[in-house]
Amino acid sequence: MKIDIATLFPEMCENYFSQSVVGRARKKGIFEINCHNIRDYTTDKHNRVDDTPYSERQGMLMQAEPIYRCFEQVTNGKDKPHVIFMSPQGQVLTQKKCVELSKMENIFILCGHYEGVDQRVLDEIVDEEISIGDYVLTGGELGAMVLVDSVVRMLDGVLSKADCYEDESHFSGLLEYPQYTRPEEWHGKKVPEVLLSGHHANILKWRREQSLLVTAKKRPDMIDWDTLTDKEKELISMQT
Amino acid sequence: MKIDIATLFPEMCENYFSQSVVGRARKKGIFEINCHNIRDYTTDKHNRVDDTPYSERQGMLMQAEPIYRCFEQVTNGKDKPHVIFMSPQGQVLTQKKCVELSKMENIFILCGHYEGVDQRVLDEIVDEEISIGDYVLTGGELGAMVLVDSVVRMLDGVLSKADCYEDESHFSGLLEYPQYTRPEEWHGKKVPEVLLSGHHANILKWRREQSLLVTAKKRPDMIDWDTLTDKEKELISMQT
Repeated sequence: MKIDIATLFPEMCENYFSQSVVGRARKKGIFEINCHNIRDYTTDKHNRVDDTPYSERQGMLMQAEPIYRCFEQVTNGKDKPHVIFMSPQGQVLTQKKCVELSKMENIFILCGHYEGVDQRVLDEIVDEEISIGDYVLTGGELGAMVLVDSVVRMLDGVLSKADCYEDESHFSGLLEYPQYTRPEEWHGKKVPEVLLSGHHANILKWRREQSLLVTAKKRPDMIDWDTLTDKEKELISMQT
Repeated sequence: MKIDIATLFPEMCENYFSQSVVGRARKKGIFEINCHNIRDYTTDKHNRVDDTPYSERQGMLMQAEPIYRCFEQVTNGKDKPHVIFMSPQGQVLTQKKCVELSKMENIFILCGHYEGVDQRVLDEIVDEEISIGDYVLTGGELGAMVLVDSVVRMLDGVLSKADCYEDESHFSGLLEYPQYTRPEEWHGKKVPEVLLSGHHANILKWRREQSLLVTAKKRPDMIDWDTLTDKEKELISMQT
């Protein structure tokens, strides 16, 4: 997978993508990522990337041309990548969308800044607009980092088998049961006895019940009630 | 506002918070942010922060004690801060929550990593769990950056008046109308004539209509149909 990011703050993205799990996978060559400074693609001597919007009294908009030139030169002579514009107006990112994007070979991400981007370049190059959530950020860079992180972690070889497992448990429709590590007693709080018992069937039962209870409490919207047994429904109604 | 972040990757957060809008506001002293390395609060000679979970065959969990010691030393003798754990299990972040958090004086953010955190320390110190969206990230650091970015941008003096305006238009219940800047014609695409007309009432009408159409197309879930006039409903049903 090859990812290109067009931004006014390439160092910000570059720094994140050089560290931790994502940085290691990148060094291993599992994916390629390049951050491009839109300012390098201006034609005027002041490297201007923005101008005032038509019919507005205040604010600045990113101009079409520098963005388009960046896109053209990066994709020059190659297959057109899937172009994503990070925007609060986009479809809200979900795990399902991350899985879908993780199968693509070539993604180009445009990060907005200032108050917006000239609509014409969006109409010309963008395939989809994605928002990472219903809140406003100072720019598209964090969105791009979130998108890349959530997508590349699913590529083969990025995570260990144990970490991959996390996916399933968070997105099997229920939140995860509580977890405990050493020591057995901490601040007067003991690890639940069943987890020390070695009794596999009881442990599985405890986990399922805890997952149900945690989900019912924190994210009742995630529970598909039709899939629960009567006993499970009773457990939830008793404890929440 | 004072923000403390407990993480295994302090440089990652530190780097983001030194740049762009957030970095400038921090230098101006509008808010204070400190990133703490949980590893500095371990007591064993290997600076170990994780261990295997009880009753699991694989994976690692962050231990309670280093996190607790970090929390204790950072908050030592001061008022207890509002403690947030970044977790895919948390309530999903919204603009409303960002506004709420922007009024707090002291926030402590815990970033998880590996497969999770010993439940007992969460029970002991955490006030609320927040998720930035329904997708899985490699760690809590990006979540903390998103949270801080969306919260501090609302503090007085961080954004210019023009930028603040963006908030209102994105979260007035409708998405923003398309915007255009120089030149008047780009790649054969002209700026809509009404925006060049100088006719203020017509411009306002165009914007409202465009906002409605954009929202109906991209995020119909955001439209409160009861607030629309019959004419507006007709416009939407004709064009979408």
